[in-house]
Amino acid sequence: MADKPRRPRAETPKGFRDYFGAEVTERKAMLDRIAGVYHRYGFDPLETSAVETVEALGKFLPDVDRPNEGVFAWEEEGDWLALRYDLTAPLARVAAQYRNDLPSPYRRYAMGPVWRNEKPGPGRFRQFYQCDADTVGSASVAADAEICAMLADALEEVGIPRGDYVVKVNNRKVLNGVMEVAGLAGDDKEAERGIVLRAIDKIDRLGPEGVRALLGEGRKDESGDFTRGAGLGTEQAEVVMGFTSAKRDAGAATVARLRELVGGSVIGAEGVSELEAIAALLDAQGYGPDRIMLDPGVVRGLGYYTGPVYEAELTFQITDEKGRPRNFGSVAGGGRYDGLVKRFTGQDVPATGVSIGVDRLLAALRAKGRVGGETAGPVVVTVMDRDRMADYMAMVGELRQAGIRAEVYLGNPKNFGNQLKYADKRQSPVAVIQGGDEAAKGTVILKDLILGAKIAESATLEEWKDRPAQVEVPRADLVAAVRKMLGQ
Amino acid sequence: MADKPRRPRAETPKGFRDYFGAEVTERKAMLDRIAGVYHRYGFDPLETSAVETVEALGKFLPDVDRPNEGVFAWEEEGDWLALRYDLTAPLARVAAQYRNDLPSPYRRYAMGPVWRNEKPGPGRFRQFYQCDADTVGSASVAADAEICAMLADALEEVGIPRGDYVVKVNNRKVLNGVMEVAGLAGDDKEAERGIVLRAIDKIDRLGPEGVRALLGEGRKDESGDFTRGAGLGTEQAEVVMGFTSAKRDAGAATVARLRELVGGSVIGAEGVSELEAIAALLDAQGYGPDRIMLDPGVVRGLGYYTGPVYEAELTFQITDEKGRPRNFGSVAGGGRYDGLVKRFTGQDVPATGVSIGVDRLLAALRAKGRVGGETAGPVVVTVMDRDRMADYMAMVGELRQAGIRAEVYLGNPKNFGNQLKYADKRQSPVAVIQGGDEAAKGTVILKDLILGAKIAESATLEEWKDRPAQVEVPRADLVAAVRKMLGQ
Repeated sequence: MADKPRRPRAETPKGFRDYFGAEVTERKAMLDRIAGVYHRYGFDPLETSAVETVEALGKFLPDVDRPNEGVFAWEEEGDWLALRYDLTAPLARVAAQYRNDLPSPYRRYAMGPVWRNEKPGPGRFRQFYQCDADTVGSASVAADAEICAMLADALEEVGIPRGDYVVKVNNRKVLNGVMEVAGLAGDDKEAERGIVLRAIDKIDRLGPEGVRALLGEGRKDESGDFTRGAGLGTEQAEVVMGFTSAKRDAGAATVARLRELVGGSVIGAEGVSELEAIAALLDAQGYGPDRIMLDPGVVRGLGYYTGPVYEAELTFQITDEKGRPRNFGSVAGGGRYDGLVKRFTGQDVPATGVSIGVDRLLAALRAKGRVGGETAGPVVVTVMDRDRMADYMAMVGELRQAGIRAEVYLGNPKNFGNQLKYADKRQSPVAVIQGGDEAAKGTVILKDLILGAKIAESATLEEWKDRPAQVEVPRADLVAAVRKMLGQ
Repeated sequence: MADKPRRPRAETPKGFRDYFGAEVTERKAMLDRIAGVYHRYGFDPLETSAVETVEALGKFLPDVDRPNEGVFAWEEEGDWLALRYDLTAPLARVAAQYRNDLPSPYRRYAMGPVWRNEKPGPGRFRQFYQCDADTVGSASVAADAEICAMLADALEEVGIPRGDYVVKVNNRKVLNGVMEVAGLAGDDKEAERGIVLRAIDKIDRLGPEGVRALLGEGRKDESGDFTRGAGLGTEQAEVVMGFTSAKRDAGAATVARLRELVGGSVIGAEGVSELEAIAALLDAQGYGPDRIMLDPGVVRGLGYYTGPVYEAELTFQITDEKGRPRNFGSVAGGGRYDGLVKRFTGQDVPATGVSIGVDRLLAALRAKGRVGGETAGPVVVTVMDRDRMADYMAMVGELRQAGIRAEVYLGNPKNFGNQLKYADKRQSPVAVIQGGDEAAKGTVILKDLILGAKIAESATLEEWKDRPAQVEVPRADLVAAVRKMLGQ
């Protein structure tokens, strides 16, 4: 035994997974529909390589402040290469590399896998899909409004009905204005601003009292753990609380309330005007607050946003793992950012864009029973006599010619039961059988496997009595008879 | 200057590239069509992760005998991970890992990028697409015949007309039989067998005399370099020569000639019978030698093939870089292999499959003017008055609602010439213009940019005089008038 080489383990690396059959086609069908909407909006596809220089990727890894951690990287002749961790960093590189050739503004969409070198966990993978659309080179809020409208259209196109989603829009400048009014401007207040942003982000979970505590001295949670607060006085805290509650209003009322709250802050007033302009542009295209609404509660995690930020939330309820109903929640988010291209060229290039969480949106479609993609199993032509394989291949050839998904059983045909088990595993709707007797008579037998399964499940045969689960037809009628059984 | 951080270079790593617009949609349209054929044949999609353990990949890197060279790999907690270098090694891992859950036989297709850590060169990239279909778990030559038929159908489906391609089929067992007859059996003759295989592979380039030289003592090429031969005697060499010329015959005649050549070799006779069976199965489905032919000249490079091998060749001529006409050549190849799954499980699992060279086939379609995919530029709504952006967004919204690809100009609108240059770069068919005068009258101006470009190229305006390159229409007729200008 000692000199036998150890066999390799047949395993995906930790945190990686394989996708089979319908998992592939359903995702593809969804992305194709989204691409159709992006195309109609004038966005062009871009497919960058999976591999970038670490230098080009920079330290923009979302949610992680440490450079080059969180990516899969390796050294090559002194250079470090890495797998991309998102689709925005490669876009920034492309926008800089081809700046003289690309149209400006440049509208592009990208769909594909990204990689994160993080600790895998349940439902948390180290390779997953992203689906982004960005406009590079437009400072106009019309570009932000367009992305929000396109996001709403995309959600409806894949099968989320109007009323089951809302795109929420906010503006970082408004947040910054509120911070100013609350006395949190200045470089020395960065920690406090972070505490306030995180507190606002948690309002749905903690409620107003929890947020108030975090704005002030701090908050003790149910477990007894204490979280330090931002140390705001009562008056300052009320400015922020007024801001978070402004989202309960709508449209013009929200804008008026926000303008009041940001008071004398120049940046805040600019942010409010931008939100107002976005609302007007969307109104002109018929996107009312039932689809796209202003919501000052939207913060978005990424540090690099500089203006409008937006988020798509699915509002229908699902049952969580503990059986409690909850809103499905966020499936897409984005905003305006300026720093990414500047890293390369030194020039400010305004950009705005959105990223759809492909797996989450697909899960939502599955929860709603709205997934597409061809998933029907093939008609299986069984092999009764291995010397007549050419006859069976001819049958399957005719079916395929007629556009019917079909295959001949290619395993060992000795055990006929195995062939039917195979057809079952393939979710085959129809099995075709031709033994020596049928061949002599010039017929084939068709077994309706879907009907057969229903009869097997049903207590009474009564309701099926007019539909035979098995028919014998002339060989020449094979295609027509299969079509009929498939209900085509 | 010294304390300014150096800016990162905006460059793809060496040997990698980006794909823009039509490059993405044309490839996607081709792969979608191929997937449609594979689906009809009962093949299911499989998408494995890009990352595998080096252990699982093994040393099966095609054309390279050195283990773990040629892949992008990195170490992680003692394990080595790597990017997949093809789609077959991951299939072998999947077939072993899920052997109790997958249907058997398992028909799967896979499409996606693979990575090779090789020296890049002109037109030679380190990331490229593969498109594979394999049947795992069938020992029947019907599985090989099916792949050949499917390959022919796929080529026709993407736009290669019948007569412009041929799928050539051979069998490694026949080759091995010929080797036996020529006295090259046995482990000590491996080097000579390699020389013979490479000589057969070169017959189109070297001609019969060149091959004969390589079978004998050796060959001196035009530059004076000497290549050592296999050292066969005249009689032995004639067996091999007879084998290579058998392909000039067709069907039954080829089979008879091969049977004669392999003489008493058991393995050779088995190979000939398999070829005969494949030909009969294909005939029964109507695939004649005009589409799929036996060709003993097909060798295929990979060492792991154990039975039938096949190759799709495009037979139409293109002009090479030196202006000489030549056949387009091979775009796909594959065959039967057994060892890959056995590495993991110790059990023999027969498998057969094909890989389409995605970039080569796409190049062939481009050469024939047969690429698909939506590539039309968007209608561009220009901005004459930046305060009326909502009006322009409303126009673009209506066009998109009507299914027309459209966008509003989102750059700085100050210079109207830049807007028309932008529309030109976007290959826009129509520009929409509404200044203050038109707004007051309730009209819009449509510029036919395709017609405009034709007029600009044409010496005389005569032929265009009945078609105005610019029209003014009521605002309410915007969609109808754009449709008319687009010829819809």
